[in-house]
Amino acid sequence: MTSISHKKFEEVTISTRSVFQGRIISLQVDTVKLPNGSEATREIVKHPGAVAVLAITPDDRMLVVEQYRKPLEKSQIEIPAGKLEPGEKPENCARRELEEETGYTSASLQLLSSFYTSPGFADEIIHLYVAQGLTKGEAQPDEDEFLEIEAITLEQAQQYMAEGRISDAKTIMAIYAWQMYKLTGKF
Amino acid sequence: MTSISHKKFEEVTISTRSVFQGRIISLQVDTVKLPNGSEATREIVKHPGAVAVLAITPDDRMLVVEQYRKPLEKSQIEIPAGKLEPGEKPENCARRELEEETGYTSASLQLLSSFYTSPGFADEIIHLYVAQGLTKGEAQPDEDEFLEIEAITLEQAQQYMAEGRISDAKTIMAIYAWQMYKLTGKF
Repeated sequence: MTSISHKKFEEVTISTRSVFQGRIISLQVDTVKLPNGSEATREIVKHPGAVAVLAITPDDRMLVVEQYRKPLEKSQIEIPAGKLEPGEKPENCARRELEEETGYTSASLQLLSSFYTSPGFADEIIHLYVAQGLTKGEAQPDEDEFLEIEAITLEQAQQYMAEGRISDAKTIMAIYAWQMYKLTGKF
Repeated sequence: MTSISHKKFEEVTISTRSVFQGRIISLQVDTVKLPNGSEATREIVKHPGAVAVLAITPDDRMLVVEQYRKPLEKSQIEIPAGKLEPGEKPENCARRELEEETGYTSASLQLLSSFYTSPGFADEIIHLYVAQGLTKGEAQPDEDEFLEIEAITLEQAQQYMAEGRISDAKTIMAIYAWQMYKLTGKF
């Protein structure tokens, strides 16, 4: 039943053309047969998947990092995040990225949700974790990663949103989850 | 001051190579100079931007559409959404997509937030609206758009999330916003 409903309006692949194999993403164009029998093309970005971490410090602040986002041609303030290495478990990746980017280690990691960022043209999935019981250490960003760490209150987070300095899906979702936690006591 | 901080850690473009120009997205690879003077490449997907609509019926249900998402090879239940036409105002696009996909027209449209879906590799922005004061009409999906409309309660939405039938960023964010509205009386 579930598997039937999950294939509703299936688009059957007639052919796949690989356009680009990059360092992070690849791109293919599929020709598909639609439910009415006609043909269409689908432009598909393949991505290894990623994690993001809503990390809340003992004094009730959220860890964020500011970094330059070339596709937007501006810097943005986001929660710590990173791509999955081949074969890496999302929870291990969340632990690793949190420590590399912020220096913090976490006694407790809990999966909040896994979501697709752009299901119309990409298969990227982000696993969003909440990290509590944090202990401070030394950040070790990648060689080509330039970022600045900050620990902000919910009010600051909302201010950054109003200013457009926070404006990505995973960070806004994390802020919603945090707000909900403050209102209801659970994630 | 604002413009300075928005360019923090700027990556200056040395060259741009266009890889693909598609019907919906295009792809380019930029060679950039990093803050430490070394060079790196950035794979960048360009997208026209999109809107999504949290549409709440007079009997307190959210309108969703089920459709096949080729990049995920499964069907998904999402809020109504669609790409911006060239020069189209997001609010007009929200009105149009809501009516085309569900048949409903809205007396009131309010912008909830605008967010980037994947700032690491894409410039896609989604403008998320809430639509209230709905009036039912006739859906008119695009020729190659196959979808099924449903009006669901918050409990059903959460059930679909638990089952993985709702799992995209914009829809989960809309559900959070709706929940918050029920808790606090405001979006």
